[in-house]
Amino acid sequence: MAKDFVTRAENYSEWYNELVVRADLAENSAVRGCMVIKPYGYAIWEKIQRTLDDMFKETGHQNAYFPLFIPKSYFEKEAEHVEGFAKECAVVTHYRLKPKSDGSPGLEPDPDAKLEEELIVRPTSETIIWDTYRGWIKSYRDLPILCNQWANVVRWEMRTRMFLRTAEFLWQEGHTAHATSEEAIEETKKMLEVYAYFAENFMAMPVLKGVKSPNERFGGALDTYCIEAMMQDGKALQAGTSHFLGQNFAKAFDVKFLSKENKLEYVWATSWGVSTRLIGGLIMCHSDDNGLVLPPKLAPIQVVIIPIAKTDEQQAKVNVEAKKIMAELKSMGISVKYDNREEYKPGWKFNEYEFKGVPVRITIGARDLEQGVIELARRDNLTKETISIEGASQKVAKLLEDIQENLFNKALSFRENNTRKVDTWEEFLVEIEKGGFLSCHWDGTVETEKKIKELTKATIRCIPLDAIEEEGKCIFTGNPSHRRVIFARAY
Amino acid sequence: MAKDFVTRAENYSEWYNELVVRADLAENSAVRGCMVIKPYGYAIWEKIQRTLDDMFKETGHQNAYFPLFIPKSYFEKEAEHVEGFAKECAVVTHYRLKPKSDGSPGLEPDPDAKLEEELIVRPTSETIIWDTYRGWIKSYRDLPILCNQWANVVRWEMRTRMFLRTAEFLWQEGHTAHATSEEAIEETKKMLEVYAYFAENFMAMPVLKGVKSPNERFGGALDTYCIEAMMQDGKALQAGTSHFLGQNFAKAFDVKFLSKENKLEYVWATSWGVSTRLIGGLIMCHSDDNGLVLPPKLAPIQVVIIPIAKTDEQQAKVNVEAKKIMAELKSMGISVKYDNREEYKPGWKFNEYEFKGVPVRITIGARDLEQGVIELARRDNLTKETISIEGASQKVAKLLEDIQENLFNKALSFRENNTRKVDTWEEFLVEIEKGGFLSCHWDGTVETEKKIKELTKATIRCIPLDAIEEEGKCIFTGNPSHRRVIFARAY
Repeated sequence: MAKDFVTRAENYSEWYNELVVRADLAENSAVRGCMVIKPYGYAIWEKIQRTLDDMFKETGHQNAYFPLFIPKSYFEKEAEHVEGFAKECAVVTHYRLKPKSDGSPGLEPDPDAKLEEELIVRPTSETIIWDTYRGWIKSYRDLPILCNQWANVVRWEMRTRMFLRTAEFLWQEGHTAHATSEEAIEETKKMLEVYAYFAENFMAMPVLKGVKSPNERFGGALDTYCIEAMMQDGKALQAGTSHFLGQNFAKAFDVKFLSKENKLEYVWATSWGVSTRLIGGLIMCHSDDNGLVLPPKLAPIQVVIIPIAKTDEQQAKVNVEAKKIMAELKSMGISVKYDNREEYKPGWKFNEYEFKGVPVRITIGARDLEQGVIELARRDNLTKETISIEGASQKVAKLLEDIQENLFNKALSFRENNTRKVDTWEEFLVEIEKGGFLSCHWDGTVETEKKIKELTKATIRCIPLDAIEEEGKCIFTGNPSHRRVIFARAY
Repeated sequence: MAKDFVTRAENYSEWYNELVVRADLAENSAVRGCMVIKPYGYAIWEKIQRTLDDMFKETGHQNAYFPLFIPKSYFEKEAEHVEGFAKECAVVTHYRLKPKSDGSPGLEPDPDAKLEEELIVRPTSETIIWDTYRGWIKSYRDLPILCNQWANVVRWEMRTRMFLRTAEFLWQEGHTAHATSEEAIEETKKMLEVYAYFAENFMAMPVLKGVKSPNERFGGALDTYCIEAMMQDGKALQAGTSHFLGQNFAKAFDVKFLSKENKLEYVWATSWGVSTRLIGGLIMCHSDDNGLVLPPKLAPIQVVIIPIAKTDEQQAKVNVEAKKIMAELKSMGISVKYDNREEYKPGWKFNEYEFKGVPVRITIGARDLEQGVIELARRDNLTKETISIEGASQKVAKLLEDIQENLFNKALSFRENNTRKVDTWEEFLVEIEKGGFLSCHWDGTVETEKKIKELTKATIRCIPLDAIEEEGKCIFTGNPSHRRVIFARAY
């Protein structure tokens, strides 16, 4: 365990905050609620971006870019959307600063440069995008439109935590336009599958796929699909959402098309997004009391090589072997760093890369080399083994696959061990305190959902897509229910 | 020439604006001065980004991300910087909207949610980054810091033009920190070389490398290096800048380090950036009266294949050949699109891809196939040739290289033909009206530079790095000068 580093058991929340800073992922900035994403943290985001972007393009999407600013009046056009988004937001009112009028040093907004209509820094872009789509769509031939945008957005959150909830965050938002309801629903589900595949196969983070209860829906959506993951403290993290928006935005922004049957109809919409929040999920899903643990597929450095040598002659020999292995690993597409800095001792480096979650460490010792062996250490379970230097690269490649799989399996069994069926309100009150997912009957009403949230802070995370039809009674009201939903406390 | 499309000779400015819209690159948005970058335009930006990003990483840089908002007071800390940037900017004053207090429908900024200190949407990030670096730098061991950021920035320009000058634009900004002045200057020059290499070898756009006169320097810089390109109307476009910032920002934000000699010293800084403006340069450098012309290395679609067939049987045969060629081209890393849509005629498609600047068009006609031939058309010089289908892919690959080279050479000879030595003020007044670069002696004073700008709208674009030492007399004052500088009107 790293010295001076708080454990998960001691204080999970402090463990997380400290980990983010000490692993060099991010830090709070001087601007309230905004973080600085440091190079090591940003390198993880780049891997996430690159992977998702490829998946979006394979499914026929193109990237575009829409304005950062949205006129205030746009938010007033979709009634539910304004409820959800136009409240806590950054409002631009002036476009110029001038020297202070009282003659004191410093600047102030120039009253002559007050905007006629305030601009909102986008909290999400449905409004400005649908205002734009009106010009792009005339006939069914212009459909579908399958656009994605990588961008920063701002939501003025009162309580912020790095990656999980920040005033400004980075994300992608897909916005698609379709001729039929069926096609839009299909798109909504397809992107949910893309997110789930990414979470499980790249982040090694098992997710439940489901649909949100009306109370948890995106403002302006007819249905919100989501992926929900379980963190190590038993709390849920909404990791991605995909919304079927019906014709709400087309109606708000008057976007119609001439159908094949020559009729003017409103266009059907979807939107879907994931954000830098995923990095928060990645950290909380796998890391331990020794620091960050990263799945190999998203680790900026997959393998670190550390030399141990006393004399220059030894150093030279170790260098030769290290460079051979590096070249082999690189040719296999594995990212590898050789840390032969002399101002740091091997022990210091071991701690450093362990804390930063580098999946595999290779130690090449001059004395070991005489026996033709090197040491492999894996970050996930902290085991070490001595292996022959012959064929070491193949062994490392295999080890990276094993680690990826092991992390997923470990997280999956953690989730399974912390998901419980609960059938009475008394039991619910006890179990919700233990954390984890509670699979319960619910009467389907917003009132019950709100009441349960009020009493326990637990929300319906989702109605799982694979929920079995089963007759039961709502844990709170006893009214009839036809399937179980997942309750949990959430980030 | 495309029907209804204005020519460069008729109205260069209108030609540009119309081209941007009709080639589907971008459009003006509902937000003053902000554009929507459409998928085809954004695909060019993605190619630019990917290429530059690889070059930055090869030269040892890492990406990071800093906040969008900068506290107003930060701009007040560096005197010259505030002059240059804190004037025309977007000012956030509130963080919440509320229903209008007079009871009318709509929203207004909530007076209870007024920020204590206004936030500025970053026009450039030196201030917030150097405020952050203070925490990262303690000793020489922490140096150099070589960070880059891909981001959006906002400068409230009064007169905007898509890509060339927009209120919001996308860019990258490198910000590096060094232990010595020499190292920082070396970095500044290195990044200028990276930009010049990219402009010439990927954009096929020849550039002059030089240093700015004091009047044209970045606010807060000791030296601004730049690359300057010539557009087809003879005006100059500043395509990228690299600044040696000295210790100005370190002093403004109190960033010191303990040197090897155990002395506390201020850190040395550079910053460098290019933006979506490059796309404007790309368009204006190569395009013609038939629409966009793109250099193959940055074209989203490098090759388009268009089938000509009347019967289903013919169509089937053409499909087989088209798919063979597509597979071959793709395996060579060439991006190719097969447009076999039946709702559009071949002639319509020819115009479409010609206007969009696709470098090579392959036409596969059913009747040509019987002779074993296909047609190749190149966009740059609009020539066509009939070639054997055997070995066509190799021929296409070679053709793409030729086009890339031809575009560069064409632009280079245009610049050479439009660069003139001018030695008298009378001559200057005549020549500046003709456009192009004027190579002149200048007495080195800000006053002369300002006066010339006032009288002719011409500015000193740069003092070329390869300027020959040569005694002469300032064209305006007649005072002695030791080298020629480049004057031009500029975008």
